[in-house]
Amino acid sequence: MQPSKTQQKPASQGPKKAISPTRDENYPEWYQAVVRAADLAENSDVRGCMVIKPWGYGIWEKIERDLDFRFKETGHKNAYFPLLIPLSFLQKEAEHVAGFAKECAVVTHRRLVAGPDGKLMPANPLEEPFIIRPTSETIIGASFAKWVQSYRDLPILINQWANVMRWEMRTRLFLRTAEFLWQEGHTCHETLEDAVSETKQMLQVYASFAEEVLAMPVIQGEKTAGERFPGAVNTYCIEAMMQDGKALQAGTSHFLGQNFSKAQGIKFLGRDGKESFVWTTSWGVSTRLIGGVIMTHADDDGMVVPPRVAPIHVVILPIVRKEEDREKVMSAVADLSKQIRAKRFFDERIDVEVDAKDTGGGDKFWGHFKKGVPLIVEVGPRDVDGGVVCVTRRDDLAGKRKSIPRAEFISGVDGILADIQKVLFDRAKKRMDSSIIQVNSEKEFNDVFTSDGEGGNAMSRGFVLAHCSDSPAAVEKLAAKKVTIRCIPIDGPAEKGKCIFTGQETSKRVILAQSY
Amino acid sequence: MQPSKTQQKPASQGPKKAISPTRDENYPEWYQAVVRAADLAENSDVRGCMVIKPWGYGIWEKIERDLDFRFKETGHKNAYFPLLIPLSFLQKEAEHVAGFAKECAVVTHRRLVAGPDGKLMPANPLEEPFIIRPTSETIIGASFAKWVQSYRDLPILINQWANVMRWEMRTRLFLRTAEFLWQEGHTCHETLEDAVSETKQMLQVYASFAEEVLAMPVIQGEKTAGERFPGAVNTYCIEAMMQDGKALQAGTSHFLGQNFSKAQGIKFLGRDGKESFVWTTSWGVSTRLIGGVIMTHADDDGMVVPPRVAPIHVVILPIVRKEEDREKVMSAVADLSKQIRAKRFFDERIDVEVDAKDTGGGDKFWGHFKKGVPLIVEVGPRDVDGGVVCVTRRDDLAGKRKSIPRAEFISGVDGILADIQKVLFDRAKKRMDSSIIQVNSEKEFNDVFTSDGEGGNAMSRGFVLAHCSDSPAAVEKLAAKKVTIRCIPIDGPAEKGKCIFTGQETSKRVILAQSY
Repeated sequence: MQPSKTQQKPASQGPKKAISPTRDENYPEWYQAVVRAADLAENSDVRGCMVIKPWGYGIWEKIERDLDFRFKETGHKNAYFPLLIPLSFLQKEAEHVAGFAKECAVVTHRRLVAGPDGKLMPANPLEEPFIIRPTSETIIGASFAKWVQSYRDLPILINQWANVMRWEMRTRLFLRTAEFLWQEGHTCHETLEDAVSETKQMLQVYASFAEEVLAMPVIQGEKTAGERFPGAVNTYCIEAMMQDGKALQAGTSHFLGQNFSKAQGIKFLGRDGKESFVWTTSWGVSTRLIGGVIMTHADDDGMVVPPRVAPIHVVILPIVRKEEDREKVMSAVADLSKQIRAKRFFDERIDVEVDAKDTGGGDKFWGHFKKGVPLIVEVGPRDVDGGVVCVTRRDDLAGKRKSIPRAEFISGVDGILADIQKVLFDRAKKRMDSSIIQVNSEKEFNDVFTSDGEGGNAMSRGFVLAHCSDSPAAVEKLAAKKVTIRCIPIDGPAEKGKCIFTGQETSKRVILAQSY
Repeated sequence: MQPSKTQQKPASQGPKKAISPTRDENYPEWYQAVVRAADLAENSDVRGCMVIKPWGYGIWEKIERDLDFRFKETGHKNAYFPLLIPLSFLQKEAEHVAGFAKECAVVTHRRLVAGPDGKLMPANPLEEPFIIRPTSETIIGASFAKWVQSYRDLPILINQWANVMRWEMRTRLFLRTAEFLWQEGHTCHETLEDAVSETKQMLQVYASFAEEVLAMPVIQGEKTAGERFPGAVNTYCIEAMMQDGKALQAGTSHFLGQNFSKAQGIKFLGRDGKESFVWTTSWGVSTRLIGGVIMTHADDDGMVVPPRVAPIHVVILPIVRKEEDREKVMSAVADLSKQIRAKRFFDERIDVEVDAKDTGGGDKFWGHFKKGVPLIVEVGPRDVDGGVVCVTRRDDLAGKRKSIPRAEFISGVDGILADIQKVLFDRAKKRMDSSIIQVNSEKEFNDVFTSDGEGGNAMSRGFVLAHCSDSPAAVEKLAAKKVTIRCIPIDGPAEKGKCIFTGQETSKRVILAQSY
């Protein structure tokens, strides 16, 4: 039995790649080209703000749905708090305001009027200006202060799905934008131990999610003092390695101690009859994760979407060259899509699209390949006669079409999707593990980071595991190479050593890397 | 077999009601009291903005999920566009800007600095100010202008879930708030007919959703010119009747003609080889729907949540008075909740909460009753021994507890929920149908609307079906009673008549009502 031959072979089999430049040629430009070719997002006319197009937003919806389930399973409930934050709220926590005042959108008026030239102008100034939330500790804390009276009201376990704004001057689609979508968890606890345990639990939720669902391996760690969230006692993070060896901070979980509860008066009457301040946490991930997925899995032919976050799992392309074949092919395609839709993948329906548009077959195939749909299934008249379907797996580096008996494909489609998910994770994990380099001296450090990481092609770098202090002298040396201490890995061995820059004693190796 | 008797009878069996004032005593205050007693939302420190608490937000999540499914079934995809709109965009459509300029939040600065008194002040003024979106026709249109080239790109069927701001001065939780959550559909079509057909299709989607899911009967209609969305050629709406007889506009669907496409340059090369402007639509519903659910179903004992939007369908209360009974009861409860969770209600899991908090039984029961959980199930040691559960249906006006064999309850729980859903709809439908009054003269009109509707108790009013023109003279008469033309009902008979105020000929009766 012959598979349909209407389309060209995927370009990956030849020298020409779909994405130009390739990763090797210019990594940052390759990234932008993938976002464009896969129709994930675009820049808007509002400086630094992006438009998330349906394919990109579809990935975000899958992320939301899976994470939301995990949050609820760990006892959290969703709520919604105001977009605007009074300046006086922000000012209550000194470190916090210092961290966000430089990049916030300020609302000062509540009306527009036409000026003398007919152009609209702000009118009716507000008594107290507001900022658009860059994060919601202060506004949510104001509600918590009302909600908590007694230890019986604790813990309070809240999550919010929302948009936030940080007026970044240098932006990059998904990775750093002035407005982005995220979730922010905010919790109050009776004891320090409960709050620390929540902080670590949510870090674990993020790590499992990243690895199981995004197929993106991560290192769990603790931030050093200089890299903490403004106002936090301790910040934990997951760090992923992109294909150029740079780090992406993919999620953070903060133990806030009593800093915010004292600033905002979140008090409770304890079991001992005394009034105490609660212990709080906050944790978040954002649309930046989509940038992480792109830079973990996409290749020189375009985007590769892990099946568990794919808006469409299977796209079916009917191949009709003669009008007399149309009915036979279309009816086989309708039946095939119905049967696949009836199956489940990780307890969710399998999403199928039938693309019967009358655009050229090759273009159509390539459109879906560049978008990273996990499975492309072509069905032509000879496939129908032979009882087969012609299947392309997006994770297959050679991009080979394979003719599979129809019944076998239908019964095994969930298994194929699970296998693609596994292949993607294993490939990324192997790449990360082989790019973590132990370094024991400043010279070795300089041998790894030969540039400041701002050039086009930066494929050769990786993570460095070294003893390095958080002292100004060490941080200055790191900064010269645009390297930061990404984290102190949680599962790193307790191995004493000396800072490669200052000789100071340190108790554990840290991860050093350039980052997004 | 005796049901457990730990708790008091629901107050509805006695003279004392849980909500004070009652609907009869003061309807607007009753509304606020229900929102508070059911823990749905609260006012925030940001003027006019609400905090949607977990129980209220849980209802919104169910609304989102169901509507989202309906949008996708009708071919729409979600996307996300910037929160901020440049003033120049807004200005492109003259009627549109006139409609929103009076109540918008204006962002003028992008940084805060500490002033001489240490207080934060706005800094770094923007070259062009932005407004926070009150609706997104203009910003989404800017993207559409880039996306559409040829008739092959049409239709474009997009939906956005988002927050929006309209700086209302008089606000009421859910019904009218400065910030609210909503969805806004935006579509582009090749022909006028396609766009009109989309507009009507989405009106039908809203109507079915309101009736099937919110159990809220609605009248589908067309707005008169004076009540249209700013910039629309035609606005369709669904209008629901609240228990005080006032109307709530629960959803709108706009045919925008070529007004926005011309203002924004959304052009395409047609099949005829000529360049034309697309035909657009927009349509939306918001968190206001939750206000509608409250005022349709809640009673003097608190909230009543229709099962299809209930965050929790069944709450189970273990009744343990003696420590020796604890294990037996808790194990029966765990098993019961597991079995109910395994069942489905409208293809979604049945959400079960076990409330084992050690607060007093009566308070606990009442807390859930006031929140409107559809089914409250009590399980005490004698119930376990007798193989029964003690069930309270929230739709039962007498609030009677009923002892039901455990196996029967489990196998029938989805049916009971469906029955509650039906009872709620039928009750509301009967109320609405019996409160629509045909009126044929100004005198009859004045007999119905005896006040301007601003008093506390307004239980006696309803909808008036009358011939009434959209002329300034008629509108003035209506305004004196705070009445508006709600809509021209779509399924109203084509019955010619004369305006009750002006004598002008009209072709159909319209709905007149006071409204929220």
